[in-house]
Amino acid sequence: MITAKTRLVAMIGQPIAQVKSPDYFNRAFAEVGAERAMIPMEIAPEAVANFVETVRGWDNLDGFVVTIPHKQAIAELADEVSPRAKWLGAANVVRREPDSRLVADMVDGLGYVAAIRANGFEPKGKHALVIGAGAAGSAIGHALCEEGVAALAISELDWQRGDLFADRLREAFPSVEITTTCGDIGAYDLVANATPLGMRPNDPLPLGRLHIAALKETALVTDAVTSPEVTPFLEAAKESGLKIQTGPEMSKAQMGLLGRHMGVL
Amino acid sequence: MITAKTRLVAMIGQPIAQVKSPDYFNRAFAEVGAERAMIPMEIAPEAVANFVETVRGWDNLDGFVVTIPHKQAIAELADEVSPRAKWLGAANVVRREPDSRLVADMVDGLGYVAAIRANGFEPKGKHALVIGAGAAGSAIGHALCEEGVAALAISELDWQRGDLFADRLREAFPSVEITTTCGDIGAYDLVANATPLGMRPNDPLPLGRLHIAALKETALVTDAVTSPEVTPFLEAAKESGLKIQTGPEMSKAQMGLLGRHMGVL
Repeated sequence: MITAKTRLVAMIGQPIAQVKSPDYFNRAFAEVGAERAMIPMEIAPEAVANFVETVRGWDNLDGFVVTIPHKQAIAELADEVSPRAKWLGAANVVRREPDSRLVADMVDGLGYVAAIRANGFEPKGKHALVIGAGAAGSAIGHALCEEGVAALAISELDWQRGDLFADRLREAFPSVEITTTCGDIGAYDLVANATPLGMRPNDPLPLGRLHIAALKETALVTDAVTSPEVTPFLEAAKESGLKIQTGPEMSKAQMGLLGRHMGVL
Repeated sequence: MITAKTRLVAMIGQPIAQVKSPDYFNRAFAEVGAERAMIPMEIAPEAVANFVETVRGWDNLDGFVVTIPHKQAIAELADEVSPRAKWLGAANVVRREPDSRLVADMVDGLGYVAAIRANGFEPKGKHALVIGAGAAGSAIGHALCEEGVAALAISELDWQRGDLFADRLREAFPSVEITTTCGDIGAYDLVANATPLGMRPNDPLPLGRLHIAALKETALVTDAVTSPEVTPFLEAAKESGLKIQTGPEMSKAQMGLLGRHMGVL
């Protein structure tokens, strides 16, 4: 129960009713008996700059989590932005310092890496395939390069976007072999769906069934889609006897990182 | 427990940890099973204009309650301000319409009137003494005139402020006899302390003991101070056998009005 003494963190987005963080954080705060709460704020894009100014003068707020469509704006508006968030041009978490300075980071990719490690997968030296080079795919691809994968293949319908992302990665990580072609499907240790495919009942699979069947048996197949929890893509991977990681596993791994960045969990 | 679907109202002020509304509203929401919460927001004065702009784009917020030091600013910044709030130059509650228009009112005085009525006191035709012509005293004095008291005496240490307020009341309510002198203390049916006197242990009484003893035995003595609940002033009135009304009674009467204005209770 919120009282006048409750310290707050917020989650901003539009829409907001579908997000999971308030539930997760409020349960976690209750479990440790913290006088804290996370509030969902459905903020229109035209109000985001004013929201950031409000936060500078909002003394019982310790930070906020950012979701669509505000990640790019927040990376521009915060006072201090991590190199990772700057590179990605997007931030998903902000800490409000006692002097009201706003410190932003982007931990989508770190959450992904934390999740695959929790599943016993060490990315260093591995061959990875990331499907989709949008916000989620960029964050995951960048994080995998930071963790020292040997090779990263990017599959992106929008070729121009895929090529642009590959070029930027090559420049930032010259020791990683970056490709935008499929090559030998049997060479991948890790396959990540970072497209929304699988959210709607009749979506095509992000990777064809023959490709899924051709993956090496030790490969880990992951999905960023959170609902359904086990997507048709993951079902197909399971049927091929492969290890899978769901979207909620990635989200959950990220919650701790969000809480730590804001200094509240 | 707050989830992503919770609809919000806020209470803004600086400081905020001492206010009672979040507790009251959150209990009331829980009792009726509403998926609503009131959040306390400690907002610095320089951030209030940005806060108001943020609210215009904040789609899961239905309104906010305003306390010190923001009541004057909100009366300026809202889109539609009740005649009462305009007259007082202060607003303490704002409703956010579906088209994001902000509608402000000031219900401090209405809360006071609701409380005295709940105590069986009908103000029409009565003689009232209001001590203090600050924000609380102005709201109470104005509301009593609106309710048709026959006479209103204003006791204010700052003579200039008292005279100014009396002149404005005379203009607005020509049928009410407005004075700034004590006159016959035995003539008052209602005495309202609207100063902060009584909050600190060694404060002087807002009205001398001899005056209290000279009040008519049917008089109602009220205090706007909420902590302590029964102030030394009210203690003295009780000792003289008079009926009293505490600050929390006034606050509680106001909560319903705040909730109704925001459309949430």
